[in-house]
Amino acid sequence: MEFVIARDTFLHALSRVSGFVEKKSQNSTVLSSVLLQADGASLRYTGTDKTLTLLGNVPANVVRAGDIAVDAGYLLNTVKSLSGDTVTCVLLDQQRLEVRCGNSNFRLVGQPAAEFPVTPPLDQSRALTIPAAALARLLDQTLFSVASDDNRYGLNGAHFEQVSGPDGGPWLRVVATDGNRLSWSQAPFSGELAIGRKSLVPRKGLAEVRRLIEGTKADVEIAFGERAAVVRLEDCTIHMRLLEADFPDYRQVLPSTFKRRANVDRLELQEALKRVLIFAQDSSRSVKCALSEDTLTLTSRKLDAGESKEEVRLDLHGEPITMGFNGRFLQEVLTVLDSARVVLELGDTLSPCLVKSPDSPDALFVVMPVRLD
Amino acid sequence: MEFVIARDTFLHALSRVSGFVEKKSQNSTVLSSVLLQADGASLRYTGTDKTLTLLGNVPANVVRAGDIAVDAGYLLNTVKSLSGDTVTCVLLDQQRLEVRCGNSNFRLVGQPAAEFPVTPPLDQSRALTIPAAALARLLDQTLFSVASDDNRYGLNGAHFEQVSGPDGGPWLRVVATDGNRLSWSQAPFSGELAIGRKSLVPRKGLAEVRRLIEGTKADVEIAFGERAAVVRLEDCTIHMRLLEADFPDYRQVLPSTFKRRANVDRLELQEALKRVLIFAQDSSRSVKCALSEDTLTLTSRKLDAGESKEEVRLDLHGEPITMGFNGRFLQEVLTVLDSARVVLELGDTLSPCLVKSPDSPDALFVVMPVRLD
Repeated sequence: MEFVIARDTFLHALSRVSGFVEKKSQNSTVLSSVLLQADGASLRYTGTDKTLTLLGNVPANVVRAGDIAVDAGYLLNTVKSLSGDTVTCVLLDQQRLEVRCGNSNFRLVGQPAAEFPVTPPLDQSRALTIPAAALARLLDQTLFSVASDDNRYGLNGAHFEQVSGPDGGPWLRVVATDGNRLSWSQAPFSGELAIGRKSLVPRKGLAEVRRLIEGTKADVEIAFGERAAVVRLEDCTIHMRLLEADFPDYRQVLPSTFKRRANVDRLELQEALKRVLIFAQDSSRSVKCALSEDTLTLTSRKLDAGESKEEVRLDLHGEPITMGFNGRFLQEVLTVLDSARVVLELGDTLSPCLVKSPDSPDALFVVMPVRLD
Repeated sequence: MEFVIARDTFLHALSRVSGFVEKKSQNSTVLSSVLLQADGASLRYTGTDKTLTLLGNVPANVVRAGDIAVDAGYLLNTVKSLSGDTVTCVLLDQQRLEVRCGNSNFRLVGQPAAEFPVTPPLDQSRALTIPAAALARLLDQTLFSVASDDNRYGLNGAHFEQVSGPDGGPWLRVVATDGNRLSWSQAPFSGELAIGRKSLVPRKGLAEVRRLIEGTKADVEIAFGERAAVVRLEDCTIHMRLLEADFPDYRQVLPSTFKRRANVDRLELQEALKRVLIFAQDSSRSVKCALSEDTLTLTSRKLDAGESKEEVRLDLHGEPITMGFNGRFLQEVLTVLDSARVVLELGDTLSPCLVKSPDSPDALFVVMPVRLD
């Protein structure tokens, strides 16, 4: 194998791969490697941890076809350190990859491509198409609600489903919950969403997809197979094994009625929460919220440290009420909305609180209250 | 106590203090507090961990004089979170400090000022004066060589002394070593350097001084007492307890003659070291350096990972030689120099290497070689 490649192109590809390979252990395994396959006029690169796989293609001047797996971290650091415009890679004997650039000469210990895990076949006969910016919003408005506790296997991913949108057409809805809060976000798509047995996509894969589509304007294709979902971008493909668990019936926890409806300036509430969170340091980041006709009073208190009080203007329909919330959860919802105002729909002291933009059917958030001491 | 203060002024003062107080433990002690003393037209603030003390003054509108010690971290976070222009602080009963700004109201649990450690008297009758930029260079060129191993008590600081400068006048020389390398840096001063019994200044204090003088153009005063050194900036004073240990006689390790003298482009060598360090991952970051008449060849190797080779143009007077060095140590020296080229003065394979700018008497660096396997 021998190929010549633009340094920046190579670096970009290797940077993408780094999130998909296993973290380097003392004994480097093939799963911390990137598979390089030079053929025709391109270099194909693959990184995988067996559940999550990235496949990409970049243009290269291939002098002699061939393949090798080399440690992804060392190769990334090597290419990052080079200052020339082009890099030459040559496969030497004993599976060593020589990387040359100017007066620099590296030789990386590789492993035969045959030892690299086989990439599962990508059944992409039926796929949906969605603009990258819309997918970015769906992920931004939901991924923060995915359970971070790995024991809650059924909640460690985001659930994908097709719903009938407000325009009557097919919309893609992404739903995530950790048991204490729930987010869904939806957007129209074209093509076909053909979900098989399962539709729970692991958080790590979606976080990598979010990273790869940052700033992209192109369309993204998403297809579901029996055990995996595939996301195809312009120049690479992400293959994600689905979680085997069942996502809970989230519609059961969505309140269908409410007794109180409050309308509040989003940034004003966000700023106030930032301040009361300084003294809301218990595990549930408890903030006491007292809603009167025209004022929301937020208070927090940490024993032996101090307390904080904020007042935010509010427009309340319904009886005044005092409830407790995890201030961080409320704050995270406000961060992923972009409307000037938000609406809170409330029941009683321990009923779920529904948060949404006043006029947008794009997203909905539920935050469970916490008991006040 | 009651005072009104500009939010940005208050924030700036509290940011400065944060490096001087003890890291907050679960049980907040008075050493994680900042002492606030409002009197006249100013607020005096003090932070200390008992060995290192910062005293500062900022203008404030003092309505009622008084003092209180409050947790420095909480107060910093509180003031940072505020968005108004001015902040009002009022001492309530039970040592609580109320912080008000717009619709925000904080009450921080404080401790009586009497519990705050007394600041040692600052004997500053005799002091030297040096421009802040010159002091910044002295510290940048030496602090990286201070031993990071806290067991090497006598090397955990920088040694200050007066030397006769190249202009015949009095210069301040700062010296640091960790046993494997040594740096000294010197600059002219005015006034008087009156060092008592000890002159070994702890790294932490000097690092904080470096942080405080960043971007400052004014002069800095430095005075030594029997047990402490005092650094006075325009609007604050740093009091540092000196280390009780004796600094080694560093002149003994400075080679007085050399057998080989090499001249090399500084940035070229720095770039080459960056690359070979990728595979110099043993504890001494060993880089093999082969010097011929016109080429320096740097190589490194990590078993089962790879190897790297770099060639740098060199102008060598003396016999060719191959030696080993800690690549990181060489790199750190090159980073704190600003000349286009550097000179390496070498003896035999295991003799110390002296590094300096070709024409500047301002600084000198010694790096001990490492044994090659």
